[in-house]
Amino acid sequence: MRLLAALERQPLDRPPIWFMRQAGRYLPEYRQLRADHSFEVAMSTPEIAAEITLQPLRRFPLDAAIVFSDIMTPLMGMGVGIEFKPGPRLDPLTVDHVADLDPLDASTVGFVAETIQRVRSAVAPDVAVIGFAGGPVTLLSYLLEGGGSKHFPRFRAGLHEPRIEEALFVLATSMRVYLESQIEAGADVVQLFDSWAGLLSESMFRRLAVPPALHTLTGLSVPTLYFVPGGSHLLETLPEIGASGYGVDWRLPLDDAWRRVGEDRVIQGNLDPGVLLSSPPAVRAAVEKVLTEAAGRPGHIFNLGHGILPDTPLETVEAMVESVVGAGNRNAIERDRTIAS
Amino acid sequence: MRLLAALERQPLDRPPIWFMRQAGRYLPEYRQLRADHSFEVAMSTPEIAAEITLQPLRRFPLDAAIVFSDIMTPLMGMGVGIEFKPGPRLDPLTVDHVADLDPLDASTVGFVAETIQRVRSAVAPDVAVIGFAGGPVTLLSYLLEGGGSKHFPRFRAGLHEPRIEEALFVLATSMRVYLESQIEAGADVVQLFDSWAGLLSESMFRRLAVPPALHTLTGLSVPTLYFVPGGSHLLETLPEIGASGYGVDWRLPLDDAWRRVGEDRVIQGNLDPGVLLSSPPAVRAAVEKVLTEAAGRPGHIFNLGHGILPDTPLETVEAMVESVVGAGNRNAIERDRTIAS
Repeated sequence: MRLLAALERQPLDRPPIWFMRQAGRYLPEYRQLRADHSFEVAMSTPEIAAEITLQPLRRFPLDAAIVFSDIMTPLMGMGVGIEFKPGPRLDPLTVDHVADLDPLDASTVGFVAETIQRVRSAVAPDVAVIGFAGGPVTLLSYLLEGGGSKHFPRFRAGLHEPRIEEALFVLATSMRVYLESQIEAGADVVQLFDSWAGLLSESMFRRLAVPPALHTLTGLSVPTLYFVPGGSHLLETLPEIGASGYGVDWRLPLDDAWRRVGEDRVIQGNLDPGVLLSSPPAVRAAVEKVLTEAAGRPGHIFNLGHGILPDTPLETVEAMVESVVGAGNRNAIERDRTIAS
Repeated sequence: MRLLAALERQPLDRPPIWFMRQAGRYLPEYRQLRADHSFEVAMSTPEIAAEITLQPLRRFPLDAAIVFSDIMTPLMGMGVGIEFKPGPRLDPLTVDHVADLDPLDASTVGFVAETIQRVRSAVAPDVAVIGFAGGPVTLLSYLLEGGGSKHFPRFRAGLHEPRIEEALFVLATSMRVYLESQIEAGADVVQLFDSWAGLLSESMFRRLAVPPALHTLTGLSVPTLYFVPGGSHLLETLPEIGASGYGVDWRLPLDDAWRRVGEDRVIQGNLDPGVLLSSPPAVRAAVEKVLTEAAGRPGHIFNLGHGILPDTPLETVEAMVESVVGAGNRNAIERDRTIAS
């Protein structure tokens, strides 16, 4: 699998490509399916969730499928009532309440593992299946806030509560169990999405985000990816998490970001999803820039710097994927020419 | 004025202190006034706007007053219909539409200058009055999006439109005129708030945010401050804007941020406003950390790393202000003791 090879930093003719939210609203076939099924029904029904997971692979020659689900899904299995409209909404919890939750029993959300089994059987052997979970700090941000928020004031107040570490470790233990169930079901790689950890200062991140992320990921039996968007101030700190690779957003050039994380690391990224709202020529130029910055180093996984935006036109997505895959063909031709000469 | 002295990098016994959104919702007297007047009426009526501007100075020994207004206010003077609920809401414009707007005639929003006149006459001579405007890129983000947004897709699509630079320069020319009118009315310092410029990659920031900010600020007759929150990836680029000083958010330790912007720069920041949701002892420790990182260097302006959060209790604000002002007293005693011995 090309994705696993990149995670092992093997030399490749081109980086593997997949992109965040590749199974989602920019696809007409997704919108059509969702017209008949709520988000909750779609993600908790393995046939439908697997179909949605596979949709982007029918259109584009991607190197990975990522299971269609939500980072809040396992919390429903822990007894937290959550609605999706489409972002998660719930009655805000306190830090004490979270600290007192029973850790996840993965069988309560067994439909995720079943979806992964279905996807693993359906895709080609060289396509990796990615499972995922939310970072403990990020899950806590939604739990304390009751959903998404501009400034997350309840969450930021909660960070100073006495039982904060305890609450985070309940979530970390649960996410570990959850990822293990996905690996057992056939996930080849797992990614931890720490979507709001970038709100933390570097020192708070080190104190509150790193230990539970480490606890979630260390010793899992497949390679792991960790991504915190808006984390330019955290790049130097990321290796403390001990993941196999790190996602970086679009804010810094890939070579600069890579230098900050560490040249010997696996890096995933980092095309600005905003560029996909422009035109195919602009997208091709932007892909070229990312590939130039990657400079063929081993350990590059091509991805967007954030989830694809819902109104993205298909033609720019096609231009992106073709540019990355085409780069491989060009490199292969170049290599054959070199050998022949 | 202590603020001006810091902007000139004079040695001081303590940094000047003011904080973003100091005239606002965390103050009971503000909420009381706003119960009788809409945001629009409050900011466009000089008596009321001046009273709100002065409210925090009646409570705390701050070194500056910042005029109560909104970065979108001057756009109303340019004929854009905007409602505040409380964030700005408007019918989204196109890049072409913005490029075709007539630049601001500052007399259309003369109430802002009049508010500044009133505030300047009311405050003590050593208190600085700060005028402000929004950064052109940030104003454009609201104009294209129709208000605030999680991902600003219309804005990010607009960045690739042919007339983007033209649109930004209409806004830059207007903000320059606007700031000049505030300076003429008595503003001692002006700050450009580029609230959403941190969404831009470093290269897009250099191409689209720096030139109009430079055009807005260069050659103004008073010192200038520039602030982009979520801009950890831009710190090394900030000096290209040519402001007298730069705000930094809470994400990096002050000494690290200062090093990235440049040791010889004036830096404003950077207490995490989230800490003010905790307790006075935690706030005192956090202030101490900021002051330790500043290490008495000339050119430090104490501030929050972002606007104060609406639910902040007064006791933590008091603890913050007292800690900064108290540090000055301690330093003065220390200095006198040294001289006496």
